[in-house]
Amino acid sequence: MGFARPALRFTNDLPDPRALALTASGGSALLIHDRILAGRVPGFRKWASRFSAVYPVAGGEGLKSLDRFPAHMEKILRLTRDFPPGKTTIVVMGGGSVGDFGGFVASVLKRGMRLVQIPSTWLAAIDSAHGGKNALNVGGAKNQMGTVHFASSVVLVRAVLFSQGRERARESLGELAKIALIDGGPWARALERSRESPDSNEKLLWKSLPQAIGAKYKVVARDPFERKRIRQVLNLGHTFGHALEAHHGIPHGTAVAQGMFFSLEWSRERGLIRGSEHERIAGFLRGRFGFSPLHELASYRKIPRSRFLELVRADKKRDSSSTVLEIFVQGFGKTRIESVPVLALAAEAKRQGWVR
Amino acid sequence: MGFARPALRFTNDLPDPRALALTASGGSALLIHDRILAGRVPGFRKWASRFSAVYPVAGGEGLKSLDRFPAHMEKILRLTRDFPPGKTTIVVMGGGSVGDFGGFVASVLKRGMRLVQIPSTWLAAIDSAHGGKNALNVGGAKNQMGTVHFASSVVLVRAVLFSQGRERARESLGELAKIALIDGGPWARALERSRESPDSNEKLLWKSLPQAIGAKYKVVARDPFERKRIRQVLNLGHTFGHALEAHHGIPHGTAVAQGMFFSLEWSRERGLIRGSEHERIAGFLRGRFGFSPLHELASYRKIPRSRFLELVRADKKRDSSSTVLEIFVQGFGKTRIESVPVLALAAEAKRQGWVR
Repeated sequence: MGFARPALRFTNDLPDPRALALTASGGSALLIHDRILAGRVPGFRKWASRFSAVYPVAGGEGLKSLDRFPAHMEKILRLTRDFPPGKTTIVVMGGGSVGDFGGFVASVLKRGMRLVQIPSTWLAAIDSAHGGKNALNVGGAKNQMGTVHFASSVVLVRAVLFSQGRERARESLGELAKIALIDGGPWARALERSRESPDSNEKLLWKSLPQAIGAKYKVVARDPFERKRIRQVLNLGHTFGHALEAHHGIPHGTAVAQGMFFSLEWSRERGLIRGSEHERIAGFLRGRFGFSPLHELASYRKIPRSRFLELVRADKKRDSSSTVLEIFVQGFGKTRIESVPVLALAAEAKRQGWVR
Repeated sequence: MGFARPALRFTNDLPDPRALALTASGGSALLIHDRILAGRVPGFRKWASRFSAVYPVAGGEGLKSLDRFPAHMEKILRLTRDFPPGKTTIVVMGGGSVGDFGGFVASVLKRGMRLVQIPSTWLAAIDSAHGGKNALNVGGAKNQMGTVHFASSVVLVRAVLFSQGRERARESLGELAKIALIDGGPWARALERSRESPDSNEKLLWKSLPQAIGAKYKVVARDPFERKRIRQVLNLGHTFGHALEAHHGIPHGTAVAQGMFFSLEWSRERGLIRGSEHERIAGFLRGRFGFSPLHELASYRKIPRSRFLELVRADKKRDSSSTVLEIFVQGFGKTRIESVPVLALAAEAKRQGWVR
């Protein structure tokens, strides 16, 4: 469908289910939610009971398996059988996997339903709940199918996000750093200069959300369906990061931070960035967020080259059979997209000490 | 995705596979085709061998079963593994079911691929290959999920369409009559006046295709995603027709013609159409195409009311839990969409003698 920027809403507590449905007078809404939230978010059960129907799921990659999708779809069809076709909303509450699953359901059920996303993790709140992309896994391969189906609105609920526990905030700082580095606007420079104490990651994220999300939509609006080599800039750090994420089993946000170090260093090596700006950005990643390149650790175990190549080739962001799109860093707020050979990527990873 | 009117191409013979792929220089194309065509269309095997990959399927509703979709998708992913993501085209050749299946595959594979439709039946050529809609069946219920994903081009191949056998032409005249009646333009009035001999249905269809398809796009372009109660006019005769199709097992085009008789008579009963115009349109359906209302036959067996209600309620075109959108006929080229209670539809069907 077309692109209309979703309405953003920030709220301290769970939003009124009637306000999420299409019309005040009588839309129906199905709530698809991660079942873990029922015991974690205060007042959840009472709130959920006010929806026309509820479909709890177990979050995680298993939920995105295409093999299990037919059984889900039959149950969801049964639940929504008597919903008025033109006035139905699917409300999806969960992290990345639930958002992917629920977003896909909303995009294909009766050829597309109105969608509201309520992200329950910091990573979803800052990144995946926005931008319309959803995905299922096919035969064990991640995100091989999906659609781009924009939510009508995304609701950010403080009580939900703060219910995850502090350690989850830390790993999502990678996505915050990424969008700040891409955008480079006044909010990003203020973030660069601020000196919050390290134990307030959650508050920092909550405070940064409106501008970080706004920066993402600024990119998405120029290329909603990733056809113009503009939106791809949001993959900064991702191709390399995904390989590390898969091989070393590190969290997504942390892996993205590693990918940014890799990209930054490659940009320096190629003379794409001045020394002072390189230092400034490395300082932003290290000093502001406390990230450091894993390969600097004595305990780091290099990835075998053949394994690294296999992981990069499996990534869906591939540009052609032998190239990938790499996002280089030319400065704070200045990036550059280039198609590079997979073999050049591997050679650079070896040079930097990530790969043996 | 957005709506861009597909390019239409009319050709006598199978089109060059290289011309169907994205770029002259090097796009890859997967051909998904009804396996029945291999033995029927002259030169098919040699032609198919020139695609990057080929996936033959058995046409029919079974192909659209969501339960079997994961297995299809795994095979298709394997076939297209080394295709360049940005330069891949899915070419779909078959009738309605293959078009629905292949169109859905193209819309979700890696979040959407370029699509070319080559309809192999008159019904697909005149109607379903255009307009972007695709569908799968969920647990035996037809067309419960799908997307709207427009083809980049639709290629009408004379040698393919004429390979179906004459009797298939007859049953698709219902869709031709429908779009002519909705459009009412000069081509439709010329069709009304022409006196082709009854054995030239195929030639009549081939000759009418450009204008009939053009008339459909005129409607689709004003409301590509069926959000404005404009595109729904293309469902003229369909809600009632689908019930007859399911209960009596008659071909789709024939059922649509019956639905038009039903709608025309209801429009007259409600005073929405003048007597002379009613007579003109009845004459168009009877005289021009040789249709007549089935319930006039002595052998017609009325549908039990409860069964009729069940069939109408199961139709995905339902407007709300208790109403359907009915397309009334006010004149040649003049229709009117109204939301009517399912019970009123059943009462009218009983009054007209279709239902007991």
